[in-house]
Amino acid sequence: MRTIQLKNDYIELIDQTVLPKRLEFVRCQNAEEVAQAIEQMKIRGAPALGAAAGMALAVTALHSRASDSRVMLRELKAATNRIKRTRPTAANLFMALNRVMKVAEKSVTGSVKELQKAVVEEAKAIAEEDVKINREMGRQGAQLIQEGNTILTHCNAGALACVDYGTALGVIRAARGQGKGVSVIATETRPLFQGSRLTTWELKHDGIPVTLITDGAVGHTMSEGNVDLVIVGADRIAGNGDVANKIGTYSIAVLANRYDIPFYVAAPTSTIDPQTRSGKEIEIEYRDPSEVTSLGGHKLAPDGIDVSNPAFDVTPAGLITKIITENGVSEPSELESLFT
Amino acid sequence: MRTIQLKNDYIELIDQTVLPKRLEFVRCQNAEEVAQAIEQMKIRGAPALGAAAGMALAVTALHSRASDSRVMLRELKAATNRIKRTRPTAANLFMALNRVMKVAEKSVTGSVKELQKAVVEEAKAIAEEDVKINREMGRQGAQLIQEGNTILTHCNAGALACVDYGTALGVIRAARGQGKGVSVIATETRPLFQGSRLTTWELKHDGIPVTLITDGAVGHTMSEGNVDLVIVGADRIAGNGDVANKIGTYSIAVLANRYDIPFYVAAPTSTIDPQTRSGKEIEIEYRDPSEVTSLGGHKLAPDGIDVSNPAFDVTPAGLITKIITENGVSEPSELESLFT
Repeated sequence: MRTIQLKNDYIELIDQTVLPKRLEFVRCQNAEEVAQAIEQMKIRGAPALGAAAGMALAVTALHSRASDSRVMLRELKAATNRIKRTRPTAANLFMALNRVMKVAEKSVTGSVKELQKAVVEEAKAIAEEDVKINREMGRQGAQLIQEGNTILTHCNAGALACVDYGTALGVIRAARGQGKGVSVIATETRPLFQGSRLTTWELKHDGIPVTLITDGAVGHTMSEGNVDLVIVGADRIAGNGDVANKIGTYSIAVLANRYDIPFYVAAPTSTIDPQTRSGKEIEIEYRDPSEVTSLGGHKLAPDGIDVSNPAFDVTPAGLITKIITENGVSEPSELESLFT
Repeated sequence: MRTIQLKNDYIELIDQTVLPKRLEFVRCQNAEEVAQAIEQMKIRGAPALGAAAGMALAVTALHSRASDSRVMLRELKAATNRIKRTRPTAANLFMALNRVMKVAEKSVTGSVKELQKAVVEEAKAIAEEDVKINREMGRQGAQLIQEGNTILTHCNAGALACVDYGTALGVIRAARGQGKGVSVIATETRPLFQGSRLTTWELKHDGIPVTLITDGAVGHTMSEGNVDLVIVGADRIAGNGDVANKIGTYSIAVLANRYDIPFYVAAPTSTIDPQTRSGKEIEIEYRDPSEVTSLGGHKLAPDGIDVSNPAFDVTPAGLITKIITENGVSEPSELESLFT
């Protein structure tokens, strides 16, 4: 089952806001519908957002009534601008848009049909590559996992965060596929509970033992000697190896450092943004206070309380043991070499 | 308004599980009702649990039909055993039971009426002293707060955690009372949201500016330079200065240490247990998985998922800047001197 797919002239994606209660699918026919699905977190996870962004341009091209390629290109640019406004932190979203638009600009000299075909093929290629890249990342990262290890992960860096398989969970799946007995500690990941709702659901489905804890219980759990290593995904990796990931990641890295527990980040090279020199330059998205003050109509705080709701934090390279990409296992300081 | 009061022959307490939606009161007429109110977290917070434990013995004595003091003492012992089984970590609960039982044992040679009176008076004294102690603690701690400080606190160590005024929030109230402009960052405190539900409610009521964040956002918030100091309460303090407090406290202390942000613990001396030599000896309560997997009937995780739900963690003395008690501001290593 794929998290997101391009089917004929529409996108079908799993609505991640209703999991694990129901497995429901959403259809998007244009960029505005994709943008709203992203904003409402129906689809989330940096690699999945890359696929969604590419496909948003594909459906824009497929539904275009333009009879001139330059007109279609303008429509694609408008769609790009809309999608760019959804979530500022996820690198893959911007990478995918740039990649498809580069192809579109090259094809603008041809017919409308040719431009359409080029855009759709590039969007499909991004999604297909994501699955391949995750499997290769899994194979590379699995060497860091030993028989019997307990692995702590934060948020959901699984199949649901990608087109399929997963980044951090892909590495765990690959270790399991090699016959290694592993178990996972999943943090619930406030405010949107991607750990409790999505990570436990994926791992249970695969028969990988998983224990759920609150975000605040990481320190106690590590102090009891219950964690062998940490693997998380990433939303954007700066050139110097600083990693933006789901809020709470940084605290886990600081605690892991205190206990000399290896802290690994698994992400495709498309998450690395060498233009962003350090974590200080990464724009952090602040989301709606209601994510923190209410839940399913249940009120958690008095009305009118001020809330600060950053969706991401930055873990400095110095706290990261290794970064796992489809190109291998690297020191955070060696990232530049992945592009040469 | 008091969190808990002995009225004629019953206890009246604020039901903290329905705040901030509704302000409701619960009546307890016997130790079993008090024990259940404690287990269900209708009343919580170490000093409030001390008051509740004392009053549980008072209502036991008041409703006793014993015609012999030795029979009543046995009833009090049974009540003590029931209350002891509720929450193993809170030191004040055990202190209060010991204190009332000591008085009861001394009075067993007198009449039933005399024993009853002695127990009720001691229970009332514990509650009255709690308010006085908190105000003195506030006065002592307020000297650590400067004009314009932003103070991060975890869980609820306010009036609702005590009979009135509060420990950590008492210090903040006292600083405010001295005319210092302060603001507070409150962590929501999973799994039971005491920060979002109770701390914000209390501070809003007092007109003290408060911003709510998730537990995972502490690292990011500190990295932005937004926190001047941390003040938390305590559920048990070991002789060596290690502090058991609400799960998540330890992570905050580790992060504060990274930024050289002072980390203060405010607690009455009744929370200090010199019999417990270090944090390693403190029993940590593990609570029901459903606190983590569901909320107000809203399902947060797939059925049958393993959960580890520690209610407390231990912050080692080395991460604590000062401990504030009614006797003054001490180094964690100097605790012994408070008892001499």
